[in-house]
Amino acid sequence: MSPALTDEASPLPIALSLGDPAGIGPEVIAAAWAQKDSAALAPFFVAGSAAILAQAAAAAGHDISIAVISDPLEAIVAFDMGLPVLELEQDPQDYAPGNPCEAGAKLALASLQSAAQLVLAQKAGALATAPVAKGLLANIGFAFPGQTEFLAHACGVDAQDAVMMLAGPQLRTVPLTVHCALADVPGRLSQALICRRARILAAALTDDFGIVSPRIAVAGLNPHAGEDGAFGDEEIRIIAPAIAALRAAGIDATGPYPADALFAPHARGKYDAAVCMYHDQALIPIKALDFDAGVNVTLGLPIIRTSPDHGTAFDIAGQKIARPGAMIAAIRMAGECAARRGL
Amino acid sequence: MSPALTDEASPLPIALSLGDPAGIGPEVIAAAWAQKDSAALAPFFVAGSAAILAQAAAAAGHDISIAVISDPLEAIVAFDMGLPVLELEQDPQDYAPGNPCEAGAKLALASLQSAAQLVLAQKAGALATAPVAKGLLANIGFAFPGQTEFLAHACGVDAQDAVMMLAGPQLRTVPLTVHCALADVPGRLSQALICRRARILAAALTDDFGIVSPRIAVAGLNPHAGEDGAFGDEEIRIIAPAIAALRAAGIDATGPYPADALFAPHARGKYDAAVCMYHDQALIPIKALDFDAGVNVTLGLPIIRTSPDHGTAFDIAGQKIARPGAMIAAIRMAGECAARRGL
Repeated sequence: MSPALTDEASPLPIALSLGDPAGIGPEVIAAAWAQKDSAALAPFFVAGSAAILAQAAAAAGHDISIAVISDPLEAIVAFDMGLPVLELEQDPQDYAPGNPCEAGAKLALASLQSAAQLVLAQKAGALATAPVAKGLLANIGFAFPGQTEFLAHACGVDAQDAVMMLAGPQLRTVPLTVHCALADVPGRLSQALICRRARILAAALTDDFGIVSPRIAVAGLNPHAGEDGAFGDEEIRIIAPAIAALRAAGIDATGPYPADALFAPHARGKYDAAVCMYHDQALIPIKALDFDAGVNVTLGLPIIRTSPDHGTAFDIAGQKIARPGAMIAAIRMAGECAARRGL
Repeated sequence: MSPALTDEASPLPIALSLGDPAGIGPEVIAAAWAQKDSAALAPFFVAGSAAILAQAAAAAGHDISIAVISDPLEAIVAFDMGLPVLELEQDPQDYAPGNPCEAGAKLALASLQSAAQLVLAQKAGALATAPVAKGLLANIGFAFPGQTEFLAHACGVDAQDAVMMLAGPQLRTVPLTVHCALADVPGRLSQALICRRARILAAALTDDFGIVSPRIAVAGLNPHAGEDGAFGDEEIRIIAPAIAALRAAGIDATGPYPADALFAPHARGKYDAAVCMYHDQALIPIKALDFDAGVNVTLGLPIIRTSPDHGTAFDIAGQKIARPGAMIAAIRMAGECAARRGL
């Protein structure tokens, strides 16, 4: 292979979905483009609406240009001149920040579908999704609990194998259970679940994060990881056997560790990602440490997908106070993962 | 009252228990004395053994003097010359760091009893306890789950009203349940428990921490605080009514808040302490943020009691690697609380 081919091959642009137009998605996307140089962001484009992005940028105080494109590849050149937008077939509406509506949910869904299809068709290198309102999507017939399940379906992957990882500058965590009552968590854990997710995690840490021999720390469920069964036996019945099985399969998994100590400063450097048993065990440390830069990465899909670790935040949309740090981090991480896959 | 009496009244010294002599207690106490000037620590003494403290200091590389005293008040003057030690009636033994034994547990218990009695007798202003090994204490007939329950009993307080608070420079948290399986947590929560602990917390924040109108944030149990009952109803059945009852009683309690967002940087400044539903919900953020300076304070006792938020750490005792930050923070906080009570 000649040097010219490897050095000069243009990477594909990153595709962004717009998110709910009444949320903070459009304004943090505009802010990300405005900070593209200082944040060293690779070229990206939005599958969405130039009018909405211009309006959101103005409301949020970001002085940006918009570059309407007709093909994702045009984003590479257009990116320096303006925020590249691939216009969707959609009547422009007057979406008011903070006032979500059905038309906005439809546009958010059209944007997600379009951006995902472009990545699947290899016209874009990765997907970064802005936040949607799940309840509003359900109202318009969206049959998935969230964007992740939609994307798993679009990729032909079992939703159980689309693994959520939260990644910040100081920590990566994978919650094994998410939106269920805390009382239901113990019953949802199984050796098979831990092994399946940890294997996907290990592969992704190598393929997309460049970690040759990933170290996976597995948290206990109970305080002090149950203290040898003194309070709770899930560590003994489920977690420790899963770790043993993973190790037998050549994966560097260790634990179960007491969750309170696992995220302390001196512990964090000893693993590449922590497998957590429930939502808040994974989310509390990420948000305490890396609130403005937390990225939600979906592992186990054939495509790369990231999103900022925050919601639509309708309550602060258009008020010049939404912080774009997590969106910027999501776009940057999408670009880095795509580069590792040579996209 | 003459100015001379208020200005020149010497505060009482802080009483320290030795902790298990084979753990890191003696060495972090020695380190705290060595750093007393830079850490601005008020005078303290140890109810223990000069020989063991000298040995632990030497093993850990701290060049300190020991000042044997026969009355706690002597500690005030002796403190500048050496680490004041009130010798207990105890044959000196050769306690090896990292190798706990029955005699060591007996000494740890004698030290705890002595230090507590001196504080109860108002010969010391506050108690800071070094870590003990609960299992070893149980082996010698200690009938309490831990030091806190022992102290509650010694003070004539119901153990349910001895409230553990974790306090670091960035955060204070109170776990409502501690050493029980996660599966048992939902069943242990009640409106009465929340209200009882929150009232003790509010009073202590005022009396011992000088916060005139304490703001108490109450965490939810379930992810997203249950999202209006979508996953888990403890917020609706138990936590929200408890908050309403507290507010009706004039306590500035708010919530239930989603636990993952409650410890994020911008949220932490909005309350003085967070009431948490379970051990790791309270401990994960404290240890992630303030690992080396986390103090365990027992509220609701007639005496002031603090301890470092770590255990005996037998595995690192005597190896020059134990960090004294939490012990120093515990001694400092004990002194600050005593000063607020005018002790």
